[in-house]
Amino acid sequence: LVLTIVIAEAALQLVPKEIQSHTLIRQYAKRRQKNPDEVLLDRAFHHSAMQKLARKLGAGQVERMGRPDIVHGTLLQILETPLNWEQQLRVIIHTQDDQVITINPKIRLPKNYVRFVGLTEQLLVQKRVPENGEALMRVERKDLKQVLKELGSDHRLGFSILGKPRLMRNVAEEASEFENPSAFIGGFPRGHFTENTRRLLDAVYCVDRESLDAWVVAGRFVYDFEWAIGVAQGRIDASSKQNGQS
Amino acid sequence: LVLTIVIAEAALQLVPKEIQSHTLIRQYAKRRQKNPDEVLLDRAFHHSAMQKLARKLGAGQVERMGRPDIVHGTLLQILETPLNWEQQLRVIIHTQDDQVITINPKIRLPKNYVRFVGLTEQLLVQKRVPENGEALMRVERKDLKQVLKELGSDHRLGFSILGKPRLMRNVAEEASEFENPSAFIGGFPRGHFTENTRRLLDAVYCVDRESLDAWVVAGRFVYDFEWAIGVAQGRIDASSKQNGQS
Repeated sequence: LVLTIVIAEAALQLVPKEIQSHTLIRQYAKRRQKNPDEVLLDRAFHHSAMQKLARKLGAGQVERMGRPDIVHGTLLQILETPLNWEQQLRVIIHTQDDQVITINPKIRLPKNYVRFVGLTEQLLVQKRVPENGEALMRVERKDLKQVLKELGSDHRLGFSILGKPRLMRNVAEEASEFENPSAFIGGFPRGHFTENTRRLLDAVYCVDRESLDAWVVAGRFVYDFEWAIGVAQGRIDASSKQNGQS
Repeated sequence: LVLTIVIAEAALQLVPKEIQSHTLIRQYAKRRQKNPDEVLLDRAFHHSAMQKLARKLGAGQVERMGRPDIVHGTLLQILETPLNWEQQLRVIIHTQDDQVITINPKIRLPKNYVRFVGLTEQLLVQKRVPENGEALMRVERKDLKQVLKELGSDHRLGFSILGKPRLMRNVAEEASEFENPSAFIGGFPRGHFTENTRRLLDAVYCVDRESLDAWVVAGRFVYDFEWAIGVAQGRIDASSKQNGQS
């Protein structure tokens, strides 16, 4: 029984071609001793260049871009958990430009955001990190449909404010009755899943009347799933036997 | 009924006097257009200067310092939650150098780490942010004992791998039976609460047999507390009545 968390349509990509020659981007890349096509797009640093991008690609698309911190925060919340330590978690990041990042559960993700950005840039340029040896992260170009086919998930649920209202605990209990459930969480700052994503899902649930950050949804769902399958209880029973485990 | 989360002995402070003249620190401050005494200590950037600090202050103390990302990650996980939106959460950060930061629940915390660092530096220099108008964060010099006195908490619990093994859900249920419970979470990367902190607590609990990151503990406890007092259920019942709330 393994839960797959899919961070879908994540706002994580290298600076797109359209603005690589923008002064702000060139200065930013130079300061970081990289080329403009080797740095992550980040709204916190590239605001005015992204305004220009919005005029080219449309405001609706661009306001969903440039938030690698969403992926970082979400990964931090789910990778160092009992569910992952028990090898019952798989994490996949699908980006808005249809790249798919798979994560080796053994990774020690950089806790520092600046380090995470550096590592992810290296990943997107080299297609894997580290360059040699066992891969900790890999990236391939494919769309979600293909990912799901390879995954063979027998239950695909998503979280969205547009979904059917339901307690998250109940969503986790339901998911735990499948062999290979997957949970889709939007990796973008606003808006909803695109129709392309939506139609891949068996069910979409809304777990609060206000929109929750991706890392809150992911952290809570992993925790509820641990409960549903007895991981939380099992690990504490075990530690009780050791009588205080100092 | 308000839950107070205390991030205790947090690894958050300005670069200490002992290494302000270190080349690495001076270069770092200059690049950020600040003085060396106006920048946060951060292990991700100041590693070699911190080695020098370890020779002056002792390795044991210094390995617990320089991790402002712990505070950032923890705040992100608990401030944008139903419990805070229902005005039933209070957050206090106590630092290793006995400063106490109080947070206005209305704050919109910067999601980007670099922005958070900038804001916190401004806070520690000016003692409040913003400089005028309603404070979103304030800092005062005081120790935890004084904080607790002002808080008037009727139940003070802490999380530690050295504590008594107990399911977190049960810890939350117990806490919810008090009027003014407070939960202490260590804001440092390794080690345990100091004896000074430990002796202020009514109970210390261990909720997993391995050490969990502060943001995981905080996020899970806020969620369990929401359940214990019925917030999760109430907000979903309410949204069901609106029949899908798009």
